[in-house]
Amino acid sequence: MNKLVIYGVGLIGGSFARALKAAGAVRHVVGIDRSEASVRRALELGIIDEAATEPESEAAAIRGADLVVLATPVAQTGRILQGLLPHLDAHTIVTDCGSTKADVVAAARAVLGGRIGQFVPGHPIAGRETNGPDAAIADLYIGKKFVVTALAENAPEAVERVTGAWRACGAIIHRLAPEEHDKVFASVSHLPHLLAYALVDDIAGKPHAGLLFQYAASGFRDFTRIAGSSPEMWRDISLANQAALLAELDAYMAQLVHLRERLAAGDGATLEAVYGNAQRARRQWIETIEAAEAPAPKDTAE
Amino acid sequence: MNKLVIYGVGLIGGSFARALKAAGAVRHVVGIDRSEASVRRALELGIIDEAATEPESEAAAIRGADLVVLATPVAQTGRILQGLLPHLDAHTIVTDCGSTKADVVAAARAVLGGRIGQFVPGHPIAGRETNGPDAAIADLYIGKKFVVTALAENAPEAVERVTGAWRACGAIIHRLAPEEHDKVFASVSHLPHLLAYALVDDIAGKPHAGLLFQYAASGFRDFTRIAGSSPEMWRDISLANQAALLAELDAYMAQLVHLRERLAAGDGATLEAVYGNAQRARRQWIETIEAAEAPAPKDTAE
Repeated sequence: MNKLVIYGVGLIGGSFARALKAAGAVRHVVGIDRSEASVRRALELGIIDEAATEPESEAAAIRGADLVVLATPVAQTGRILQGLLPHLDAHTIVTDCGSTKADVVAAARAVLGGRIGQFVPGHPIAGRETNGPDAAIADLYIGKKFVVTALAENAPEAVERVTGAWRACGAIIHRLAPEEHDKVFASVSHLPHLLAYALVDDIAGKPHAGLLFQYAASGFRDFTRIAGSSPEMWRDISLANQAALLAELDAYMAQLVHLRERLAAGDGATLEAVYGNAQRARRQWIETIEAAEAPAPKDTAE
Repeated sequence: MNKLVIYGVGLIGGSFARALKAAGAVRHVVGIDRSEASVRRALELGIIDEAATEPESEAAAIRGADLVVLATPVAQTGRILQGLLPHLDAHTIVTDCGSTKADVVAAARAVLGGRIGQFVPGHPIAGRETNGPDAAIADLYIGKKFVVTALAENAPEAVERVTGAWRACGAIIHRLAPEEHDKVFASVSHLPHLLAYALVDDIAGKPHAGLLFQYAASGFRDFTRIAGSSPEMWRDISLANQAALLAELDAYMAQLVHLRERLAAGDGATLEAVYGNAQRARRQWIETIEAAEAPAPKDTAE
């Protein structure tokens, strides 16, 4: 493509730009970020070719763009779309990278109205514990999933422009409806984050917290790793995916009430059955992942 | 010491024997295990010098031992002590490696009666995801904690024989009362295990489990790593530490009820405060660990 515009030049947006450049899939990249230092750094690092820091340069950047990518916190989606709509050419496609989709789609519909077909929502399943332009790397998305939650209004070519770009970054394309996406990630990502935060906060609030942390070992470290994530980002995700997250939390709390009752009754057989079922399911899942990650068997004729 | 007897020649017992041999701190090691294949393998690997597989050889092994270590599931403590008591010399000290202590002490008191002073309960805080004699390594305990939960009846020399051996393995000695130990580990180890098992079992039981596991990523993998542990062992630990575990579970469930109510109310400020507090507490903990693990600054005169 000729011109790509990125809102947010940190880990997610910056890595997308680096990967497309490495693949020779983009000619010119313009970066926009609420942090001036980040845009300057992204320019220095060669992640972007041009910085648009003023409203006038933002308008000029949007005009004629092939693809506009929002790699910003989901709560900013509506405001950013409002800013770019007056300058949006009919051929330009806009996409996003948000961890929640139903709320992003609702915000986009409210702002874009009849032009919603130009917005193709998506979510790359990749991340690291670092952030900012310096964290951006060209191979972040290789072998990772990109979930496109296409809308009925999206033309096949619009969807293809987005998925084609992610494919060029090395990502594997998956398709889910926005609501389905949010239910899945409430279960395997948003709920675990809430649970890990809750446990560390619970322990930190006890009078003997210092003694407890002194004996916490590697199992605790892994279990709570996700509680090291950004509180602001996870506050936004929790609220954006409130309904699905509440449903998952309720199911989990019902499971805990059941286990508590069995533990109080000294029912070792049920505890072992639940633990054993979890161990088996997890082992099967890991084996599936490892089989998918293993290199394909070599052609015997080679 | 002259003679060491180990019940259980797997990861924990085998590594203890290997470490003492590497330190030149033991002359002769006898191994006892309910699995004959394990004792044979431990003998082959040079972890033990002698295998005691029959009641007669077990009796002979116990007689004259300086130290007897139980590295077996906690539920077997009473039965093993019953078997060795008739052959126990007055100078022999018995210790254990169990993850729970109040139940082990109760079982030992019930069996040993007036000779309880010869039993010094302990818990080495180390482990790996592998098991059996082949997993045993000499440096498993280097820099790890050994918690001794000494009893009022233990003579200082009895405690020193146990802690001295663990110090020779490279462990750092900590002291807690048995009940204190159990509360601490209910909080930072037993509860996290139950929570991880509960989550994976909950997800595995959903009709769309396959879809969910397909999108589970590295955060989920770390969060649930401890759900890969032995269900039998964790059933025993859960039951052995029932009271402390129930208390921790109740505190955690109260925390979840509070967070659920705040999430339902759309109270982003409270969510962010809880998440932020957890992130800060965890970061502080990691920094403390890393400072403790960092090599001491070099002498400038070097």
